[in-house]
Amino acid sequence: MQMQPSVVELIAAKRDGRTLAPDDVRRLVAAFMSGEMADYQMAAFLMAVFFRGLDVAETTALTFAMLHSGSVIDLGHVPRFKVDKHSTGGVGDKVSICLAPLVAACGVAVPMVSGRGLGHTGGTLDKLEAIPGFSTDIPVDRFGRIVGDVGACMIGQTSEIAPADRRMYALRDVTATVESIPLIVASILSKKLAEGIDGLVLDVKVGRGAFMKTDESARQLAEALVSTGVHAGKNVVAVLTDMSAPLGVAVGNANETREALAMLHGVGPADLRECTMVLAEEMLLVAGRTKERSEARDWLEGALARGDAREVMARMVAAQGGDARVVAEPDRLAVAPSVNVVADADGVVAEVDPLEIGLAAVALGAGRTRSDQRVDPSVGIMVRAKPGTRVARGDVLAEVQTRDSVGVAPVVERVRRAFRIGQELLVPPPLVRGRVEGRRGSGGST
Amino acid sequence: MQMQPSVVELIAAKRDGRTLAPDDVRRLVAAFMSGEMADYQMAAFLMAVFFRGLDVAETTALTFAMLHSGSVIDLGHVPRFKVDKHSTGGVGDKVSICLAPLVAACGVAVPMVSGRGLGHTGGTLDKLEAIPGFSTDIPVDRFGRIVGDVGACMIGQTSEIAPADRRMYALRDVTATVESIPLIVASILSKKLAEGIDGLVLDVKVGRGAFMKTDESARQLAEALVSTGVHAGKNVVAVLTDMSAPLGVAVGNANETREALAMLHGVGPADLRECTMVLAEEMLLVAGRTKERSEARDWLEGALARGDAREVMARMVAAQGGDARVVAEPDRLAVAPSVNVVADADGVVAEVDPLEIGLAAVALGAGRTRSDQRVDPSVGIMVRAKPGTRVARGDVLAEVQTRDSVGVAPVVERVRRAFRIGQELLVPPPLVRGRVEGRRGSGGST
Repeated sequence: MQMQPSVVELIAAKRDGRTLAPDDVRRLVAAFMSGEMADYQMAAFLMAVFFRGLDVAETTALTFAMLHSGSVIDLGHVPRFKVDKHSTGGVGDKVSICLAPLVAACGVAVPMVSGRGLGHTGGTLDKLEAIPGFSTDIPVDRFGRIVGDVGACMIGQTSEIAPADRRMYALRDVTATVESIPLIVASILSKKLAEGIDGLVLDVKVGRGAFMKTDESARQLAEALVSTGVHAGKNVVAVLTDMSAPLGVAVGNANETREALAMLHGVGPADLRECTMVLAEEMLLVAGRTKERSEARDWLEGALARGDAREVMARMVAAQGGDARVVAEPDRLAVAPSVNVVADADGVVAEVDPLEIGLAAVALGAGRTRSDQRVDPSVGIMVRAKPGTRVARGDVLAEVQTRDSVGVAPVVERVRRAFRIGQELLVPPPLVRGRVEGRRGSGGST
Repeated sequence: MQMQPSVVELIAAKRDGRTLAPDDVRRLVAAFMSGEMADYQMAAFLMAVFFRGLDVAETTALTFAMLHSGSVIDLGHVPRFKVDKHSTGGVGDKVSICLAPLVAACGVAVPMVSGRGLGHTGGTLDKLEAIPGFSTDIPVDRFGRIVGDVGACMIGQTSEIAPADRRMYALRDVTATVESIPLIVASILSKKLAEGIDGLVLDVKVGRGAFMKTDESARQLAEALVSTGVHAGKNVVAVLTDMSAPLGVAVGNANETREALAMLHGVGPADLRECTMVLAEEMLLVAGRTKERSEARDWLEGALARGDAREVMARMVAAQGGDARVVAEPDRLAVAPSVNVVADADGVVAEVDPLEIGLAAVALGAGRTRSDQRVDPSVGIMVRAKPGTRVARGDVLAEVQTRDSVGVAPVVERVRRAFRIGQELLVPPPLVRGRVEGRRGSGGST
């Protein structure tokens, strides 16, 4: 009889670059959750994974072990194909808020479990909660009913979803083991698979404001996400999108929700609209609603033009306890008074550093540096001059929305420094920087 | 003002292959001991060190941080040069027991803090405690007095010596981070420097019965030990010695002490005598008693022939509460009855696997698989046919000393399998396989 390897032997095996059997990966997660494997042993294992990686089978086993450490939402009563979108996080990324009702209006169910802002990137839950009364803390059974009735529901991670991921992520955060592609993949997918989805579209952000700074690293992450998702039996597509500047104009909470609602009215910034439409197309394609991208786009344009998307949004807001009047009248959302940031030279905006803008928004109170902090929905930054814009000295580059027009001076200065004004004409980089597709039994990338 | 990097930032720095400032290494150890750095963070750091290593300055800083986590024995009242010997561990390695009194008899003080057996290697403390009444648990001030009066004293690690090493070693043991040269170096040297020594001779064992299986890995360890020891301001020499077979004849506790005492009577096995004399020469050279190896050897031979070494041994045993009559009459040490292991073919002993012999001795009760086990001093193995010996079928290869002549059958079989009998003449490998020397301000290896 073969003895089962001990926890220490499994750590040593990964340390030495050996591939673990799926059963051994499952056993490690189970031992960690039962307390048989101590935090310090998991920390050593995670660092060994940082150096040695995990292959697709190991990553899939880890994903499923983390998924099954908690409960999986059963959406079997919802007959429609269920697709979610996940973004790896950027500055000004309010896409989920307009995307979910838009895609639901085209006949696809969108069960979405989102996160809160931490560090320089915002969180969908914080943005939605700028709507008076809107609750993201909804029991799983009511979540399922809203997805069935309305087509979309957006909530926060409950304590039943992937508790192993929560504990492992907390450990990674304090042991310098966050930046590992297979660990990122397992963390994202374990939570997404717990939503009871059939397919998933990933928005992998690339650039200074994103977790992945280069196209190469973003593509590695996208490919790992897609291959693991396919291995887990889902249709998965990843789109690489630009995060060399904030997305849209608004950065904050109420102002981002307002901008997402404006997009549903057909008046949002062009880059936000394009990002939303590209991801929405992918969701319709993943759901098998059509095989033609142009047909998907036509449906989406129709749902926007007819007001179907706004109607789904209003129903979802109402179902989640929020004041649905904001959908027709986005200006109902309270936004703090603003202070202008002006250009100190003539020229062309060469760069709007998304990392600096994101950190400035955190400094205003729109985001968090620790997970126990509260955010102020009304504060933020409006980026009025995007890269490629010609400006004259004294023109408004941005507005800083604040309740403290005196103490805000250092933030205003920080926002000013986020803008680099050059003398040459400049064409901003394309929004879509790549695409990785994987369907059950196949795969490919362009 | 530069902010101090956080513990997580320091882990990330090492993870990314950066060199830590000595202050940062000290801060990590201090944070670990104060509880500010959690076990799981230290585990992640240790795994990062496993992959990235530490340079000499980092290893020295770690060594000193671990050393100064506890108290350093003050032997300032002992006017002689103080030198210790440390062995990385082998099977049948009873050298310390004859070496310490021999070197002390030649005018060098030998303050020796030793360990217990764990796994297949024995421990000096267990062997010494086979002497009735002998205590290795002696307060630091009495230890200092005995070193001053007798010239040598051999005790166990006290709780005041390098507590950071004890905690880090316990963590390494359960996180697969033992096999890291800089961590091994810091662990050994922090304990040795705590003895208040001026110089150190290291016996780095090489071969199947040792921690380092190859000459290359043993030389790496030796060079790291010597360069760090020199960086710490000590004269340090490492000798690489063979551990492809047990050293001497006896493996166990009482029988090893008896063999070490026999060596002081001039009747020990040749390889034990040679190993002891080579290391003793190095200790006299390190202590600056002479610059000539041949002169050192003459003194040592004289101390043996005149009985000076036996006299120091008897005084040390008495000072430590033991029955000093065993020095003149080693057969007073109780040894269990023996069962013969005989050759099943004619030929030449090609190999005596030290790992198997060591594990067989543990199975008899001479060693431990867990640190809380007790050992039986009277059991063990006498290796009667060393590599290169011609044997005929039925000749005694070894004697297994046991109190259970019936239940011992599997151990007898294991010992038999440790012997490989071939047909070709064979010259055993040389005992000394290399040497690495380092003196303050210089260094070199041969």
